[in-house]
Amino acid sequence: MNPQSAPQSTELATESGRLLAELRERVPLVQNITNAVVTGFTANVLLALGAAPAMVDIVGEAGLFAGVADGLLVNLGTPNPEQRAAALEAVSGAQAAGTPWVLDPVAIGALPVRTALAAGLFSAGPTVVRGNASEIIALAGAGAGGRGVESSDSPDAAASAALSLAQKSGGVVAVSGPEDFLTDGERVVRIANGDPLLTRVTGGGCALGAVIAAFLGVRGDASVLTAVVAAHVVYEVAAERAARGAAGPGSFAAGLLDALSQVTGAEVVAAAQIRVES
Amino acid sequence: MNPQSAPQSTELATESGRLLAELRERVPLVQNITNAVVTGFTANVLLALGAAPAMVDIVGEAGLFAGVADGLLVNLGTPNPEQRAAALEAVSGAQAAGTPWVLDPVAIGALPVRTALAAGLFSAGPTVVRGNASEIIALAGAGAGGRGVESSDSPDAAASAALSLAQKSGGVVAVSGPEDFLTDGERVVRIANGDPLLTRVTGGGCALGAVIAAFLGVRGDASVLTAVVAAHVVYEVAAERAARGAAGPGSFAAGLLDALSQVTGAEVVAAAQIRVES
Amino acid sequence: MNPQSAPQSTELATESGRLLAELRERVPLVQNITNAVVTGFTANVLLALGAAPAMVDIVGEAGLFAGVADGLLVNLGTPNPEQRAAALEAVSGAQAAGTPWVLDPVAIGALPVRTALAAGLFSAGPTVVRGNASEIIALAGAGAGGRGVESSDSPDAAASAALSLAQKSGGVVAVSGPEDFLTDGERVVRIANGDPLLTRVTGGGCALGAVIAAFLGVRGDASVLTAVVAAHVVYEVAAERAARGAAGPGSFAAGLLDALSQVTGAEVVAAAQIRVES
Repeated sequence: MNPQSAPQSTELATESGRLLAELRERVPLVQNITNAVVTGFTANVLLALGAAPAMVDIVGEAGLFAGVADGLLVNLGTPNPEQRAAALEAVSGAQAAGTPWVLDPVAIGALPVRTALAAGLFSAGPTVVRGNASEIIALAGAGAGGRGVESSDSPDAAASAALSLAQKSGGVVAVSGPEDFLTDGERVVRIANGDPLLTRVTGGGCALGAVIAAFLGVRGDASVLTAVVAAHVVYEVAAERAARGAAGPGSFAAGLLDALSQVTGAEVVAAAQIRVES
Repeated sequence: MNPQSAPQSTELATESGRLLAELRERVPLVQNITNAVVTGFTANVLLALGAAPAMVDIVGEAGLFAGVADGLLVNLGTPNPEQRAAALEAVSGAQAAGTPWVLDPVAIGALPVRTALAAGLFSAGPTVVRGNASEIIALAGAGAGGRGVESSDSPDAAASAALSLAQKSGGVVAVSGPEDFLTDGERVVRIANGDPLLTRVTGGGCALGAVIAAFLGVRGDASVLTAVVAAHVVYEVAAERAARGAAGPGSFAAGLLDALSQVTGAEVVAAAQIRVES
Repeated sequence: MNPQSAPQSTELATESGRLLAELRERVPLVQNITNAVVTGFTANVLLALGAAPAMVDIVGEAGLFAGVADGLLVNLGTPNPEQRAAALEAVSGAQAAGTPWVLDPVAIGALPVRTALAAGLFSAGPTVVRGNASEIIALAGAGAGGRGVESSDSPDAAASAALSLAQKSGGVVAVSGPEDFLTDGERVVRIANGDPLLTRVTGGGCALGAVIAAFLGVRGDASVLTAVVAAHVVYEVAAERAARGAAGPGSFAAGLLDALSQVTGAEVVAAAQIRVES
């Protein structure tokens, strides 16, 4: 890839601000097949940001809806049998309609049901995979997963797994951590925004998967990688703003929703900490 | 109907304040068969208001519980197979015991499973149907539904659908919007309270369905329409109070629960914006 | 039992502060099989406190995970068929691995499905049973349960049921109320901390079950009763702190998460209201 044709840090920051305006203008419809713990918070994050969430996760509706949604999130946090079948149906529907979709392989590795499901879903070619280091390593078949839903590996250790997964799927892989590692299999972008309080609120990572699906739905001519960068930067700059006013995780969670509704493109551009590596 | 025997705006405002006091005195037991996204928020809204929520939504218990509950909400937001069967069981139990019940046909129209279920449940004669304009039009068979869970029709467009549904069921139909449209098939009441932030919080509408069930449970000699008016006015006046202190949807959601626990009958009477039409 | 060898109030308060530090140091992995209403709040309570929550509640994973978790909560609030099977699997896994587990028999008594399940789970010997007075009385076979999820009996009325259950199971039984009643079948400890706002937030009691599981996971040489005391005192002292700054249940819920992340061992020791009876 010609490095001169690839967007650099400043350009990605500008694009993040622009895509935020685009999102608020177009209100993308985001289908969420996500875990029981974070459904409410995820919907609230999308509403605060300016997207339209819909939790259509039953057989007989999930596939159909994926055909009309602007983006789809499949999160494997609590994959009961009905949701597993609905996830497969939704991914088929998304593939048939060209709807971009995000796979979040929560806690895979040691847990066999979701690990098998994640492998099957990955083979369908997700537009984006988002996870913590342990999940990405496990999805690449190179590790046994983390400790429950928490990562026991650093984002750096997941870099080669992420590159390999992105090359295999043709999509983008995003590894969350103190510094996020994003790759489309060629280029690498690192994002240093965010706040540790995001790890003290359930759904802090899961909701980011939904935000990615929202940005994919309005990316237009921008690359998938650019949309994924925008999702991370907007969400994490809002988290920084919320953290400044928070007394702890409870006020932070409420403040994050406020901040997502208030954060401006200019603020995102100014606060973005993006490093483009190759 | 003799217009002189029907309550007018002032009387309905006074009744709203009185029924709020009645609710807090009697603590109605409200059974909720509702979607996975809003269960927690719905329970918190009921608790804040002064009611006793119970989410009994499994086969073998739902029908039995509907016989002892003071009111029942059936919300079709995420109707998995177990919940669909439980909803039918609960409605049978409610009908047998004379328990008032509310149907909220979330996102029906384009989604076939819930649309068929809603039609079946409607034919059982819900005490109240509550939805947005697109859902009410779809339930009347006159439209294809909204965009996901959001309405793509205005409340006015739903007026004739609502009147027709109310005449068919013998119950009350409430269409939520910037101005709510309520009818028992003869009389029409419009309520202009509330705040746009209610649409930026997931469950803003769904929880109103539960609040309606709570007011139905304590209405005594008041008409169903009066109880539905009271539910709307109390909930939306509390929302106005919360919006005044909110920086965004996160602080609004927390503030709404605070306001529901604090709002007084006098405040409700003073702030009510009710128009009786016929 | 030699009263001189049993910890007294001051010692239990000191131990509560010590176990809180231990918990934050060791970050116990807590598996939650809990109801749909409170999953998000429960996870947030555990994260705020310093534990690592995981909601692994599907067949094929629940038993395996119970073997690696530090503690397990089984809460029967919304026991759909998949969760019932997963609960049985998890308890088998916990028993085989020696993982301590907590049974919260939500709303048993009049509701047949969960009542039968609770009886079966109780016969497996939970490390701790936590419930309100009506639930404990119903589990002991001496009553018909409460009004939905709310108790219609006082904690004192449940004292003999709790003693009998603890003697039968060999574990600890905790009855929540204005004053909590805790017993291992011999000793009785009463705790007077907490705030009425805990009953105005959904999951106020359910999350305590998860906190108990977290403390069990780090108790080391301390007795089960001591760990259960610590869970109650820490959770309820944090609730008192949150209540002081709350305008109602919404700000209280957010404030409770803040307080759980901030409360210190010294604060717990100073505020503990523990009475050891025998």
